[in-house]
Parts: sequence; C-alpha cells; structure tokens
Amino acid sequence: MQKIEHIGIAVNSLEEGEKLYESLLGVPPYKRETVESEKVVTSFFRQGPNKIELLAPLGNDGPISKFLAKKGQGIHHIAYAVTDIKAEMQRMSKEGFVLLNEIPKRGADNKWVCFLHPKSAGGVLVELCQEISG
Amino acid sequence: MQKIEHIGIAVNSLEEGEKLYESLLGVPPYKRETVESEKVVTSFFRQGPNKIELLAPLGNDGPISKFLAKKGQGIHHIAYAVTDIKAEMQRMSKEGFVLLNEIPKRGADNKWVCFLHPKSAGGVLVELCQEISG
Repeated sequence: MQKIEHIGIAVNSLEEGEKLYESLLGVPPYKRETVESEKVVTSFFRQGPNKIELLAPLGNDGPISKFLAKKGQGIHHIAYAVTDIKAEMQRMSKEGFVLLNEIPKRGADNKWVCFLHPKSAGGVLVELCQEISG
Repeated sequence: MQKIEHIGIAVNSLEEGEKLYESLLGVPPYKRETVESEKVVTSFFRQGPNKIELLAPLGNDGPISKFLAKKGQGIHHIAYAVTDIKAEMQRMSKEGFVLLNEIPKRGADNKWVCFLHPKSAGGVLVELCQEISG
C-alpha cells in the first residue's frame, strides 16, 4: 500500500453533496465522471495529498443505490493506491481478505480497481487502485 | 482544512483489529493510547501522509461501544487537520454544520478536537483536529 488515494462517500444527490463538500472543504470539486458499469456518477475533491470521491446513484439498481437504501448517506469505501495491483491482490488473498473481483476492473479516475469484502476487512469496504498507464 | 489527518475505524477488539490492519497495510501500529474521557482505547498506523486510528471500546457505555452495538465494526469518522480549530468551528457553524462540542476538547494523539454531527454532514461523523502546541 502506498497511501490512502481517496475516500468514497455515498450521497443521494450529487448536486447537494457537492454543495456540502464545497462548504466543508473550502474548495470546489475538480471533476465529475460517470461509471456506467457501476451505475454511479462521481465527483472529486482534492484534499491535500488525498481525494474525496462523492458517489451518487445512476438509476435504482446499482451498488450505490442499494447502499443508500440500506444504510443511508455516508462513507462507502476507503481506496488505497498500490503500484502493482495484481501482486497486491495476490498478497491480500493470501492474508485472508476476500476479493470481490478476481481480476482488476476499470474504475473512475483512470484506475484499475479491486474491492475487498467488508466481512473480511473489519467491516470496511476496501478498494485497491492503480493508475492506468499508457 | 489542511488535509485528512486520519480515518477512525471502530473495532470490537484492539488486538484483532491491529492484526488485521497490520496485514492490510503491511506495517505495524506505532502507538496505543487510551482516552478515558471517551471510554476508548486507540491504536495508530501511519499510512503515507495520513493515519488510521483503530478505536476499541473501554467498557460498555461509551460512544464506541454504542456505535459497535448499533452498526458493527467499520468506519467511525474522518478527521481533518486544521490550523485554527476555533476559527474553523466558527466557519463550520456559519455554514450550517452542527458542532457536537462547543469548545475544543482534548482527543487522542495530542490534539484539540471538535466533531460535526453526521446529520449535518451528509451522514459522515467529521472531526476537526489541531495539534496541541507547547
């Protein structure tokens, strides 16, 4: 693990979430990005060396929509930057963490990502992410 | 806000939480600290420019004990470092965030802290923290 890349926070509405986080952090978001495969629209804020990623649902049957229905707004995941996601996935698996995807998948913000099951990670949805190069 | 100072994560057992996070992050915790007033024992991991703070209950009637009973293990709060906590508390209050303590209180890791009510902060318990100097 290199560092916490971002914290993902589920919000009901991207517009309202952006207003709230602009008030909280004192800076506006620097980009929005839709990830159709995950049925989510995201908004990113820089916060020193880290990012805050707001996640709002697209439609009502994606993972963020389900999360909001079950738990309401709040922290969804912590993402750690790694330099070799496949090696890190292998290491995590050996350590007893349960991978939610067996091969890296394409996430927001030009990243390969893999999620670890919260039940294997102390109740926290953990994301590993690696910048897609080239 | 300067940066994300740490992420606080509630765990049932500090020993098991430390083992899990040592596996996940690849580094051991660097200190434990008890905050009697909050009925919590904490363990800190460095993660690049940030920290992970594990929070385990002391007894069964403190805030972490209640959190665990209600929600189970998982992310408890996000703490942002500030340089002038009183000014930041005033700004937050004007922006509509609800302060959980009206004057800064002494937290773990040599910090003055103030919490913002999750209902006013998009479902996230937000901590402002400032290093205690002198």
